[in-house]
Amino acid sequence: MKLYVVGFGAGSFEGMTISAKNAIEDCGLITGYSVYTELIREHFPHKEYFSTPMRQERERVEYALSQAETRNTALVCSGDCSVYAMAGLAFELWDKFPRAEIIPVAGVTAALSGGAVLGAPLTNDFAVISLSDILTPKEKIEKRLECAAMADMCVALYNPSSKKRADHLKWACGIMLKYKSPDTVCGYVKNIGRDGEESMVLPLSELAEADTDMFTTVFIGCAETKIINGKMVTPRGYRIE
Amino acid sequence: MKLYVVGFGAGSFEGMTISAKNAIEDCGLITGYSVYTELIREHFPHKEYFSTPMRQERERVEYALSQAETRNTALVCSGDCSVYAMAGLAFELWDKFPRAEIIPVAGVTAALSGGAVLGAPLTNDFAVISLSDILTPKEKIEKRLECAAMADMCVALYNPSSKKRADHLKWACGIMLKYKSPDTVCGYVKNIGRDGEESMVLPLSELAEADTDMFTTVFIGCAETKIINGKMVTPRGYRIE
Repeated sequence: MKLYVVGFGAGSFEGMTISAKNAIEDCGLITGYSVYTELIREHFPHKEYFSTPMRQERERVEYALSQAETRNTALVCSGDCSVYAMAGLAFELWDKFPRAEIIPVAGVTAALSGGAVLGAPLTNDFAVISLSDILTPKEKIEKRLECAAMADMCVALYNPSSKKRADHLKWACGIMLKYKSPDTVCGYVKNIGRDGEESMVLPLSELAEADTDMFTTVFIGCAETKIINGKMVTPRGYRIE
Repeated sequence: MKLYVVGFGAGSFEGMTISAKNAIEDCGLITGYSVYTELIREHFPHKEYFSTPMRQERERVEYALSQAETRNTALVCSGDCSVYAMAGLAFELWDKFPRAEIIPVAGVTAALSGGAVLGAPLTNDFAVISLSDILTPKEKIEKRLECAAMADMCVALYNPSSKKRADHLKWACGIMLKYKSPDTVCGYVKNIGRDGEESMVLPLSELAEADTDMFTTVFIGCAETKIINGKMVTPRGYRIE
């Protein structure tokens, strides 16, 4: 049977692709991190749900794969199914559950859904970097921030801070300021497409003090990024041709 | 009235978000690059369409904005509305059409939809870089490729080649090979979600010779990316915890 690893977008029903909706409808059992299964339950109340708290990724994915050997099962992820999400782990654990067919269903990751809230920040080349050092060593994150800044790419930062990593965004801003002007246009969006959505456009010099959390996505512009009527916009050169 | 700048995903009806579908249904007039309006016309035949060929971006966006002053209009983009797409230009030209309200509708960009075809290549930090030097100087693209490779990020390459840029992918592979092993797992997907979809997983040493075109998205893995049952998978460390 099928294990759909479903990226459901930011969380609203409308932010989901039609494929994601169809995949969930095709399943009796919906599995995932508890915050995400609760979002999905609002839209699909008549399903069986199984969730585990944060950090129990392996248990969750193994359970989903085991169930998918005998019935169609969805493993739901916010945003995309792959970007900081579960499709990779499902493939890694696949060998123990050969009767499950794994079908990744792509979704709108926060760099895109948050971008649409702010305007059009990621029109040109960009990097997506998570500031969480739980699964990636801090030195590696630092190198990626340095390189993205050196190359004047726009950057979308995921997991900019949490209770345990309260100072990570400040640290990242320090690295950015080595290469980017303090006037670089930045922005952030909290709770994209969910209750309490909130967004702000501000210069890089003020970003370190922004009130962000685990449900915030941060955008750092490139040299050309500008503010147009309060929107964060990176041009791509069409206008000057 | 409204100008929805709609990222409609790879091109299939199912790859569209419910927001994108609703936005198009809310409009009488659909505008865009002719390849894209033809894709949308299949799903929404009873609309008025206006399209311009490639390179006439400014004319297309100005027409869409002018129409949106008096009726709801959609400007359709494949993938996302912002990534190498039209939302930025719409905001730039907005001042001449103040009665139009611009609403970006995010969509699944090819890095994500193509990723789902290949497996889960972009599980961790990644860069999205276009090899088209029509709107970005080649030196800037080179720097971005260098920096992404140095930082061992996964990379999604857009516009890897065209008739005029037949050797661009070869050039990009040369830069990657300065920093990444020739065994680095790579992949590409042609015509994602459309007729003639085709994909391949192959080592970086063979990527330069791959038969790619303007409708191909190329994926270059990081040091940890591996092949599992023919799928391109970048782990994120969940398994080893």
